[in-house]
Amino acid sequence: MLMLATGSCISTGGAPSPARFCTLATRQFAEYLTRVSSIANFQSETDMTETLKTGTIHLIRHSDSYWRVTFDNPPLNMFGPANIPQLEEVVSCLETDERVKVVVFDSAVEGFFITHWDFLTGFADSNTFPAGRTGLQPLPDMLARISRLPVVSISLIRGRATGVGSELALASDMRFASREKAVLSQWEVGAGLVPGGGPMARLPRLIGRGRALEVLLGADDIGGDLAELWGYVNRSLPDEELDDFVDNLARRIASFDKQALAATKHLVDVASLPPDSAIVPEWRALLDALGRPAAQKRLQQLMDRGFHRPGDVENRLGYYVGQLGG
Amino acid sequence: MLMLATGSCISTGGAPSPARFCTLATRQFAEYLTRVSSIANFQSETDMTETLKTGTIHLIRHSDSYWRVTFDNPPLNMFGPANIPQLEEVVSCLETDERVKVVVFDSAVEGFFITHWDFLTGFADSNTFPAGRTGLQPLPDMLARISRLPVVSISLIRGRATGVGSELALASDMRFASREKAVLSQWEVGAGLVPGGGPMARLPRLIGRGRALEVLLGADDIGGDLAELWGYVNRSLPDEELDDFVDNLARRIASFDKQALAATKHLVDVASLPPDSAIVPEWRALLDALGRPAAQKRLQQLMDRGFHRPGDVENRLGYYVGQLGG
Amino acid sequence: MLMLATGSCISTGGAPSPARFCTLATRQFAEYLTRVSSIANFQSETDMTETLKTGTIHLIRHSDSYWRVTFDNPPLNMFGPANIPQLEEVVSCLETDERVKVVVFDSAVEGFFITHWDFLTGFADSNTFPAGRTGLQPLPDMLARISRLPVVSISLIRGRATGVGSELALASDMRFASREKAVLSQWEVGAGLVPGGGPMARLPRLIGRGRALEVLLGADDIGGDLAELWGYVNRSLPDEELDDFVDNLARRIASFDKQALAATKHLVDVASLPPDSAIVPEWRALLDALGRPAAQKRLQQLMDRGFHRPGDVENRLGYYVGQLGG
Repeated sequence: MLMLATGSCISTGGAPSPARFCTLATRQFAEYLTRVSSIANFQSETDMTETLKTGTIHLIRHSDSYWRVTFDNPPLNMFGPANIPQLEEVVSCLETDERVKVVVFDSAVEGFFITHWDFLTGFADSNTFPAGRTGLQPLPDMLARISRLPVVSISLIRGRATGVGSELALASDMRFASREKAVLSQWEVGAGLVPGGGPMARLPRLIGRGRALEVLLGADDIGGDLAELWGYVNRSLPDEELDDFVDNLARRIASFDKQALAATKHLVDVASLPPDSAIVPEWRALLDALGRPAAQKRLQQLMDRGFHRPGDVENRLGYYVGQLGG
Repeated sequence: MLMLATGSCISTGGAPSPARFCTLATRQFAEYLTRVSSIANFQSETDMTETLKTGTIHLIRHSDSYWRVTFDNPPLNMFGPANIPQLEEVVSCLETDERVKVVVFDSAVEGFFITHWDFLTGFADSNTFPAGRTGLQPLPDMLARISRLPVVSISLIRGRATGVGSELALASDMRFASREKAVLSQWEVGAGLVPGGGPMARLPRLIGRGRALEVLLGADDIGGDLAELWGYVNRSLPDEELDDFVDNLARRIASFDKQALAATKHLVDVASLPPDSAIVPEWRALLDALGRPAAQKRLQQLMDRGFHRPGDVENRLGYYVGQLGG
Repeated sequence: MLMLATGSCISTGGAPSPARFCTLATRQFAEYLTRVSSIANFQSETDMTETLKTGTIHLIRHSDSYWRVTFDNPPLNMFGPANIPQLEEVVSCLETDERVKVVVFDSAVEGFFITHWDFLTGFADSNTFPAGRTGLQPLPDMLARISRLPVVSISLIRGRATGVGSELALASDMRFASREKAVLSQWEVGAGLVPGGGPMARLPRLIGRGRALEVLLGADDIGGDLAELWGYVNRSLPDEELDDFVDNLARRIASFDKQALAATKHLVDVASLPPDSAIVPEWRALLDALGRPAAQKRLQQLMDRGFHRPGDVENRLGYYVGQLGG
């Protein structure tokens, strides 16, 4: 197993070719890096086990063609501004590497695939993020770029995939869920917010308008079986079978020809991806909502009850947003 | 519980604000009202029970934010020209009221959510309806406006939702069906007709082209379980659980922030609603079909067997349209 | 039961009207006919049984309004250049006949609905096919025209519907599968190819982007039950019930008014069919892939193991494309 070296996509094994170096730092991005408190933290630890620990977001090369991106931000696997340059580096590597064919997104945190945005990290500043390459704000920008990668992306969902976690899963090409342990949701409306990472554009195309509206306006937790019935995930599998299923599928895809994969995916992209212009208004709507008293009050109510801390509010967020009153 | 006062959206309780008055009567609509035999019939009866009876279409306020619209036109809950101004008033109230967040459409008639258009009320005149606000004919106009309300709409389907009933359900944001008692269909092709209220535009977007064509060209009755498997409804529930499920969901949504609901729904609308221009040709196609001998003969055959009267033809319309011969 | 006479759509019974003659041979097509080794082979055999055998593709008239098109190219029901003029004749008849209302596509070959393109018939020449009426290459041209027929098309899937078979099924209005014996797949990516007959445009619209990508990039066999859950087929039925179900539905539709069927279908077409321009690049992508060493090597590996011959490779192609290595 190979690992990600600091600041590049070079593997520690094999003969790196120039094309496999990631040249990430545009001027805008470099400026941005100086502004956030935490920056990309890919350490070069080696590890004899199957899992390489390299910081909050780990990029693990099972082989040249099969990578994993593991989110490891315990205890809740929240996603915040500090994770943006980390994920940006990962996405850039996936965009530029010539050999990678499939990437699996998963979690190293028990109970949480990725939960929500970290609202304690100064979200108010976030409207000054420099736009990403697509012109979108960084989070929806990276998600849109993941959708268009010439690489097959798979979300392996064990634990809560709510908010950002659901949005990453929806931006992935395929999603597989633990029947017992996966929970998907877009809980934001329940807190007076509007989701910002693409689900209004992506969910109705995936599961139909009616169920998309139930997910988004009902804002409740959705288990693995219902997610499969609705097509929110490709398949829901018994938890003990999930890892093998995804690993086998990833290895299978990794054995195929990259050009055939990329050409076929590209034509599906044309037929099924929302245009970036459909995603643009979501981030603006999120910022607008964040500025309204309704959201401030609801977020405060949730914080008072235990939001952003391990416990029942985070474990059953769908229930708690329904208890805040009108 | 509050009720709808005659000719306005003012509740009988609370302090009505000017914005909550409905100003419905455009010139065109006023002219139209003089032409139909039955006009809006919202009576101000009070009722100590949970259900307020105020005419054929009842608007019941469970609270400022949670309304019900109950269709009560026994014995078959047909929908005809007389119901158009009634529903127009309801839709206008939903469009202009600043506090309503969720509306549930249901039925007070055993066995029928809403069945089909009332063909005994002079449908031939209907091609002279003045267009509604969208430029569409009144029924598709109101359905298109329901889809775009800044209010969450839910159809609670118990009994037959066929023709207009299916079209109202499809125009609603979400649909929940009784597993034992719901029947959905677009039976029109079986009578030589073409549906006129939007299903050719809405069904393929919701359940895919293949199943939409089976519903529309097979013209058969679809039970609750199959409707759920196909996504024709969000969920099919045991009949005894249906009311509580919908009521709990409506109360939950009513507890959320209206702006967050409306902003999120609006972005889903952009991603998933058919343009009005896709619905325009349906009414014309319906009128064209009505003028053809095939439809006249088939409708007469159905009438001869009991159509428009309580009994087996209405209860198993899918079966009977298959018995008319080629 | 009637049958197709050689070179026209005239039935052997009834009074043929001029409109029922098919005038197929455009100059381009005639030129094409001289180039392929095998041409349309509709023989005028009569048969006292329910099934008329008239060559590789049989057009069987159960009645003026209900036709069957049966693929009978044992042992594998492959589809190749020789079948193009045969299917062209069938499609032209369906386009021009004024009485046919419903057509069922099925197979006379045990184990195979239609499997894949016949790669041993000189596929390299195929990039010189004259374009069909839509401007598309002949196979996607005919499939696109089937989708727009003023006739209801149904694929009855028993056995493997892989590659071309899946593409024909997807171009049909409805698909019904044997729960035990149907297998659908787009295996092409597994052989280094790109599907060429429309599935990248059609599958995501039918079953959503995530499952479409799993079908197309996973390239594995999909059984009847999973195909139903995903909406890849309308319904999966016990094998012993499949024939009666499809026959009853076809007879039901054949009893309806053709104008009502065609007008309703046309409006669904507007709402749900991909534009031809979305299908155009698929054939080009297939030819490009065929020219790459990866595909040549993989096809050769498959041939070495038994591809194009009855046996385990053809019966479990999804498994075998996963065994070719990276």
